[in-house]
Amino acid sequence: MAELDNKFDELKTRLAQIHDLNKAAGVLSWDQRTIMPARGARVRAEQLATLGQVAHEKFSAPEVGRLLEALRPYEDSLPYDSDAASLIRVTRRDWEKARRVPGELRAQMARTASLANGAWVEARQQSDFALFAPHLQKNIDLKHRYVECYDEVENPYDVLLDDYEPEMTTAEVSRVFDELKRHLVPLIAAVAERGRPVDDSGLRGHFPADQQRAFVTGIISRFGFQPDSWRLDPTVHPFASNSATTDIRITTRYYDDTIGPALFGSMHECGHGLYENGISPLLERTPLCRGVSLGLHESQSRLWENLVGRSRPFWRHFFPSLQAAFPEPFAALDLETFYRAINKVQPSFIRVEADEATYNLHVILRFELEQEIMAGRLPVADLPAAWNARMRDYLGVTVPDDAHGVLQDVHWSSGYLGYFPTYSLGNIISCQIWEKAAAALPGLYNQFEQGEFQPLREWLREALYRHGRKFTPAETLQRVVGGPIDVGPYVRYLTSKLTEIYSL
Amino acid sequence: MAELDNKFDELKTRLAQIHDLNKAAGVLSWDQRTIMPARGARVRAEQLATLGQVAHEKFSAPEVGRLLEALRPYEDSLPYDSDAASLIRVTRRDWEKARRVPGELRAQMARTASLANGAWVEARQQSDFALFAPHLQKNIDLKHRYVECYDEVENPYDVLLDDYEPEMTTAEVSRVFDELKRHLVPLIAAVAERGRPVDDSGLRGHFPADQQRAFVTGIISRFGFQPDSWRLDPTVHPFASNSATTDIRITTRYYDDTIGPALFGSMHECGHGLYENGISPLLERTPLCRGVSLGLHESQSRLWENLVGRSRPFWRHFFPSLQAAFPEPFAALDLETFYRAINKVQPSFIRVEADEATYNLHVILRFELEQEIMAGRLPVADLPAAWNARMRDYLGVTVPDDAHGVLQDVHWSSGYLGYFPTYSLGNIISCQIWEKAAAALPGLYNQFEQGEFQPLREWLREALYRHGRKFTPAETLQRVVGGPIDVGPYVRYLTSKLTEIYSL
Repeated sequence: MAELDNKFDELKTRLAQIHDLNKAAGVLSWDQRTIMPARGARVRAEQLATLGQVAHEKFSAPEVGRLLEALRPYEDSLPYDSDAASLIRVTRRDWEKARRVPGELRAQMARTASLANGAWVEARQQSDFALFAPHLQKNIDLKHRYVECYDEVENPYDVLLDDYEPEMTTAEVSRVFDELKRHLVPLIAAVAERGRPVDDSGLRGHFPADQQRAFVTGIISRFGFQPDSWRLDPTVHPFASNSATTDIRITTRYYDDTIGPALFGSMHECGHGLYENGISPLLERTPLCRGVSLGLHESQSRLWENLVGRSRPFWRHFFPSLQAAFPEPFAALDLETFYRAINKVQPSFIRVEADEATYNLHVILRFELEQEIMAGRLPVADLPAAWNARMRDYLGVTVPDDAHGVLQDVHWSSGYLGYFPTYSLGNIISCQIWEKAAAALPGLYNQFEQGEFQPLREWLREALYRHGRKFTPAETLQRVVGGPIDVGPYVRYLTSKLTEIYSL
Repeated sequence: MAELDNKFDELKTRLAQIHDLNKAAGVLSWDQRTIMPARGARVRAEQLATLGQVAHEKFSAPEVGRLLEALRPYEDSLPYDSDAASLIRVTRRDWEKARRVPGELRAQMARTASLANGAWVEARQQSDFALFAPHLQKNIDLKHRYVECYDEVENPYDVLLDDYEPEMTTAEVSRVFDELKRHLVPLIAAVAERGRPVDDSGLRGHFPADQQRAFVTGIISRFGFQPDSWRLDPTVHPFASNSATTDIRITTRYYDDTIGPALFGSMHECGHGLYENGISPLLERTPLCRGVSLGLHESQSRLWENLVGRSRPFWRHFFPSLQAAFPEPFAALDLETFYRAINKVQPSFIRVEADEATYNLHVILRFELEQEIMAGRLPVADLPAAWNARMRDYLGVTVPDDAHGVLQDVHWSSGYLGYFPTYSLGNIISCQIWEKAAAALPGLYNQFEQGEFQPLREWLREALYRHGRKFTPAETLQRVVGGPIDVGPYVRYLTSKLTEIYSL
């Protein structure tokens, strides 16, 4: 076995180097999106392309495949859930995927997406889909070539989905979303038709960025990162990133007239950050050192943003200090009015501004359109009309122009097809995990009222975070909640919350 | 020639990738030294090691040597000063150096220096040289192995020097420093013995960091970076860095009770930054895209810090706004007292706090001790005594303890032997270049009084900055000042300035 030990060490060393290169790219990207002088962008793009290319070359090298093959007996000799067996198993799956895609195609996808992104910015500014359409077509054509690299798939969309939610099939997402839609459409209609109105005008005021930052930092500190292991910085399009499990970078955006985006956005990104911060230190510098899928990741951002951050017990604790920090709008407001306002449901055009309930219909719409596009049933030119029709059907709103419709999201310009569904998968999973946590920690809400979140965070770390990518998303979910994805808890949560707020 | 064109393109592509990896390491290092959460350090060290190793492997690859060999006819067909011929020529020299040093030795030097650095921090805190001595010995032993990689050298110290000041010999530095010492020692003695005293107590006061930052930013903006191409950040040990010629990062340190370090330190780092910012955009992402040597680089930091920033015309312009920004200490001060105070000469223990004149004796002392150590004439154990004796001889001061003596600098712990001389070479060269600039731009001081620095910066960009590393340091200096290194201008500058201030 000494030779196998050596081979395993060699594999780990190679993977650690590749991980370092990817994390370096992460730091450069974080830097670009937060603090980089604007004129540094052209060279930074080259640096990111180089890091991506070198990391990919090193990973898809035949030698990695030979090591993985040679290590089969080593893997078989270890427990399935050991770090070492998991590293070999997960890396083999990654390698099998990576080696199928020619470097030339990968480079062409990156270049095309880069140009498409520029065209999209312009098109959105002018609200003119025609400017973007040819670039989107190129991205889609390349996605078809990408799908062809995986010759044995049944549904081409499965390949796209797998990059973000490994081993989840289109059929399974469709089944889950159909069921979700069946519950959500009537619930949202009931709120609009029969609910007592919610007044959120009391949330408007004057919010200096420095004071927002201080307040938000106070909350995030309570959520419980290890000290000296995180940063919060302003940016235009908020995101979470990290250089190590002990160096988490979250970002947010401060608006003058409302604290909502910074408040809930920060808690959202903090959820992503807590997941990465909680990964076992033993997995550091390995490909297992990451949240297992975008869906599971989003379950944590949504859990901390919504299930914690929009809950009544949370605000029983924090509302007095919010009133003290911002007496201007909040001194005159009572907790109940505030609670109802931050949970208001109202169909709107823009996904990222949508409330907890309608958000999913934005996602389902995109998931359906993406499938039709990839199946060739929907020509790109017809996309705006299809978008607008479905917005009317699902949310009852009339899209005024493409900037508020089909052009609102960056994803398609970046070549991210198959990404959107993970947002709603995250919502669904967040409530499955929440029910388990609440059952395991009976005093959870009492703790929130005391500003105490450590028991929840520790439970999540133990149940989910520490595993990183050791298991598949489905295996991971099974371990945490004891079953597969299930819309039940989410529907129960929304129905109960909205029934109370809107007196349905 | 088409085949040669292809080979040249291949070389450029490889070098651009390597440059990207090195610049990525630069960003990661900048991040670590300015804003990184403290707990990120362990993983960051691994990331930096990986980037260094991958860049070195890619550069020292035999294929790069083969390309360089194949490109000889291409190089010969082009003018010596063309970008392409210079790229091949300079890269060949770099490659010849890089390929001689085994990766194993390089890694061992990095690891040993890393441990030595930790020991040095501890030793300095306790002011106990014995804690550091064995680590220094290891660094020195490895330097000897490093020197042996270059078998044909006459003086081992030449090899060390070449890493920082290419093609400069120990003999030449000795000649220059001996002459400098011959002038400086009596000049400094005259100031101490016969000069009228200078009172700098008026520089003390209360200086909030935010206001220092605003004032310093105002100055640096006038020195003239392109907009959106630089940042200024606080740090513990100030430095200048960059991710691209259009993304310059300078750093400084704010003390509560004095603005001097932030003021002159920022102008110093700004000088480094202006050099990199002024390199021709055509050299971006090539190994030529860097200042040509540490000496030439330091000439620019010192030029902007001292020849500009400690000049009377500069303060004729800025002193009123300094008084307005900090009325507490400065409203009561007149310009002449301020000017004399910021140019006060006083022998002291610490190099980085030394004035313009005594600074060089600190450097010469280190240069002499380094040579004796490398020649085996000075055992490490005797270093503190030798240090203290020379401080008495050159500066007339008695070193109280090792922390204020032999342990004060980080360089030896990091394995930087041969680095110190470049500081004084920079001082000397700064005045050679200054005399040329002043001759070419007769209205220079009038412009400073108007707060106008663009003509000087443009002259420097045209004469020096744009060339990057296209020529050797000696060739570069020849192009700018028409001759070799010469202490004359520096001695004239200091003598004239101190004669006036101290009424010698």
